[in-house]
Amino acid sequence: MAKSAKTKEIPTILITNDDSVSAPGIKALVEAVKGLGRIVVVAPDKPQSGMGHAITIGHPLRLQKVHLFEGVETYSCSGTPVDCVKLAVDVVLHKKPTICLSGINHGANHSINVIYSGTMSAALEASIESIPSIGFSLLDYSIDADFSGAKKYVRIIVEKMLAGKPLDKHLCLNVNIPAVDEKLIKGIKICRQAYAKYEEKFDQRKDPHGKKYYWLTGEFKNLESGKDTDSWALKHNYVSVVPVQFDLTHYGLKKTLETKWKL
Amino acid sequence: MAKSAKTKEIPTILITNDDSVSAPGIKALVEAVKGLGRIVVVAPDKPQSGMGHAITIGHPLRLQKVHLFEGVETYSCSGTPVDCVKLAVDVVLHKKPTICLSGINHGANHSINVIYSGTMSAALEASIESIPSIGFSLLDYSIDADFSGAKKYVRIIVEKMLAGKPLDKHLCLNVNIPAVDEKLIKGIKICRQAYAKYEEKFDQRKDPHGKKYYWLTGEFKNLESGKDTDSWALKHNYVSVVPVQFDLTHYGLKKTLETKWKL
Repeated sequence: MAKSAKTKEIPTILITNDDSVSAPGIKALVEAVKGLGRIVVVAPDKPQSGMGHAITIGHPLRLQKVHLFEGVETYSCSGTPVDCVKLAVDVVLHKKPTICLSGINHGANHSINVIYSGTMSAALEASIESIPSIGFSLLDYSIDADFSGAKKYVRIIVEKMLAGKPLDKHLCLNVNIPAVDEKLIKGIKICRQAYAKYEEKFDQRKDPHGKKYYWLTGEFKNLESGKDTDSWALKHNYVSVVPVQFDLTHYGLKKTLETKWKL
Repeated sequence: MAKSAKTKEIPTILITNDDSVSAPGIKALVEAVKGLGRIVVVAPDKPQSGMGHAITIGHPLRLQKVHLFEGVETYSCSGTPVDCVKLAVDVVLHKKPTICLSGINHGANHSINVIYSGTMSAALEASIESIPSIGFSLLDYSIDADFSGAKKYVRIIVEKMLAGKPLDKHLCLNVNIPAVDEKLIKGIKICRQAYAKYEEKFDQRKDPHGKKYYWLTGEFKNLESGKDTDSWALKHNYVSVVPVQFDLTHYGLKKTLETKWKL
């Protein structure tokens, strides 16, 4: 027993986010997993919310060592969350970390938000690179959000992921945490992604020169009633966990097309 | 017969891309579908390659009417490809178009590229909005790429999509076209997304002030050998068609997690 414990390699935990390296959420994530391995942070130098899976190809990237978290090697990067993961693996670590964690995001990333989210795109990028990953989001957009309840569930889920054999090298989890008192959280629920999304409405304004401009706004609507979705779980005070994948093939429609389209 | 033809509504075809409204590829797409309906173009005012599903939330958007294509209402937009689709529906058309087309992209968007591609993210955004959509890409990154063969296949596929009952309101196709002489193209193949991706390698340089910066580079590698993938089809001179979806739930791993994680 002692021997196997000794020979077990210390896991490397790569941490990133989309709210920037100085956001309270990433600090909470670092604190939540302290002691579980060697932590290395590579995160954007400015907010990158809604950046989706954007990468920087038209101009070069900068990487700056910063001193933000005690005893934790930390870099600030001029690129997107996905750039951060790529740079971390190739330039900072020179190897794949054991796992990659992203967040804790200030705000929800359940349902269709997974597609727009920089937090989740960073996690998905790691998963493409065969690095198991988790994106964490708290349902509170505020800069002063209280991450204390979230930190408890982050640690439970990361410990599950690190324990024993990895379930899948491409495992990528989208974890959302209700912004309620810790005592009110009912537990963790494995879910599917809800078809719930923003109904967009642009706010049209005029600048001081009389020229029009538009602000993206919208109302969030849940378009289905299933009890197995992340939106349902969160509404009922569960922490939602959705395993996500990067194979976007719609296999059902692939079959339909093969039958209906005579090619 | 004559009556039903008369009462049939003219389809509205929304066109966008990620290479900008002035790219030759979008001109080729407009030409390819001329006569199939009312065409409206809303496309980015500058190149937006690799923008993935990014949206603009931190600053407002501009929309400018431009005169680029004869008889075609065209707008240049300061946002991302996904912003273009949202603005087109809410501000320009005030309704959902019949279909949304994106491209023709200068360069490949098969396999994992679907996730980074602004072209495909615009198409996927339409599909989220219940607008059937197609993203077209030609396997030639050159600004002087020859789109003549591509235009033929664009028209065939768009006509199939517009004919008869729509197969699915969320149907979204990722179409890639080999950059070879039209006579060498063997036909159209319905495929799944290959697990083929870039192996990143950052090119590290020093600026005139001695500070490091990094350029994203990499080598493309096909990591599987299946004959049913888009990468395989394109290598063998087929036009590849992959139906893609925005539900990222990994249902297989969802089941595994439900069994293995005692929650």
